[in-house]
Amino acid sequence: MIKAMPRQVDHDERRRHIVEALLRIAGTRGLDAVSLREVAQQAEVSMGAVQHYFATKDEMLAYALKHWLDLSIHAGFTARVAARLSGRTGPRDVLSALAAEYLPYDDPSRFDARVALAFLARAAVDEALAAALVPAFAGFVATLRAVLAGAGAAGSGAAGSGAAGSGEAQRLASMLDGLRQVVLLGVLDRDEALALVEDHLNLIVGH
Amino acid sequence: MIKAMPRQVDHDERRRHIVEALLRIAGTRGLDAVSLREVAQQAEVSMGAVQHYFATKDEMLAYALKHWLDLSIHAGFTARVAARLSGRTGPRDVLSALAAEYLPYDDPSRFDARVALAFLARAAVDEALAAALVPAFAGFVATLRAVLAGAGAAGSGAAGSGAAGSGEAQRLASMLDGLRQVVLLGVLDRDEALALVEDHLNLIVGH
Repeated sequence: MIKAMPRQVDHDERRRHIVEALLRIAGTRGLDAVSLREVAQQAEVSMGAVQHYFATKDEMLAYALKHWLDLSIHAGFTARVAARLSGRTGPRDVLSALAAEYLPYDDPSRFDARVALAFLARAAVDEALAAALVPAFAGFVATLRAVLAGAGAAGSGAAGSGAAGSGEAQRLASMLDGLRQVVLLGVLDRDEALALVEDHLNLIVGH
Repeated sequence: MIKAMPRQVDHDERRRHIVEALLRIAGTRGLDAVSLREVAQQAEVSMGAVQHYFATKDEMLAYALKHWLDLSIHAGFTARVAARLSGRTGPRDVLSALAAEYLPYDDPSRFDARVALAFLARAAVDEALAAALVPAFAGFVATLRAVLAGAGAAGSGAAGSGAAGSGEAQRLASMLDGLRQVVLLGVLDRDEALALVEDHLNLIVGH
């Protein structure tokens, strides 16, 4: 047991090291460019080492998605939204901070948006990845719904709670998804997109 | 000249035949699965024939995107929206028909949504494809803007014209993009998504 413990830790670290290499490729050149050879080269390990930890590309992608959701999204995103708020807790402040953090604004956030889009496109043809992504979508909607319900409870808008609030949260989440993509592609300026979201928030929860 | 004309027609037909094979792969297994070998096999031509018409995968993808936008989207989508309307021309009818056609409802429309998502993800790491996609995004927003302006002119809502109408169109387009994706992934039922859009239309243009 004493010998087995550190080995287990090493294995997990090695797996993370490999999928972080995969994510760097996905965020710069897309999942198209992900191959055994490219991942091994990016991770600076042998192809045999990659194959030792992941039997198939699908298995490696599933592990990479889980790792990315845990670290970059759940932990990183939440911390960055909190940093934007710096103590403010009003529902409208939280909604604005969530939107501002979701729309790409620098290289790391563009990287995350590209990785998200790469996994999304892959999930459309891969049921296992789709199943792994569903909780992330549901979690984002649940967060928005809770904040919108707070806005409704505070009497600052007409559409914050109940069934209407739930629909409002899904509409806002999907609007943010779509705007994130057009900002990423350069169809729309980030500041324009953010102004569009603020106008929508004025409409649904008031100022 | 008399001999050259039919040869030119053959070349264009052959190129379309090849990229239609590529699109079948993209719509079922994603752009990841697109390779010289797979496209040649799907098109039932030699790999040399594919290489004769397309020097690189990027060139083939660019041609495939253009062909798909021309046929499946501009022509096909417009015709299917018109069929849904069957003569009705009210702005609200048109908006509902556009939304109903945009959210996947059968195998061909799910296929189109998967192809769109595959090209979108690729465009996030390929500037030439991004440039080719921008007019499609802009065209969809312009269509929605024109219909929303009609709704505003008819006095049926508060946000149909001018700068507000323009923002409303982009918001609606992005909301539809995001909803299309969650419907495609099975996160949300299509009928639920459509009901969410109808509620939003009630809010922005009235009944």
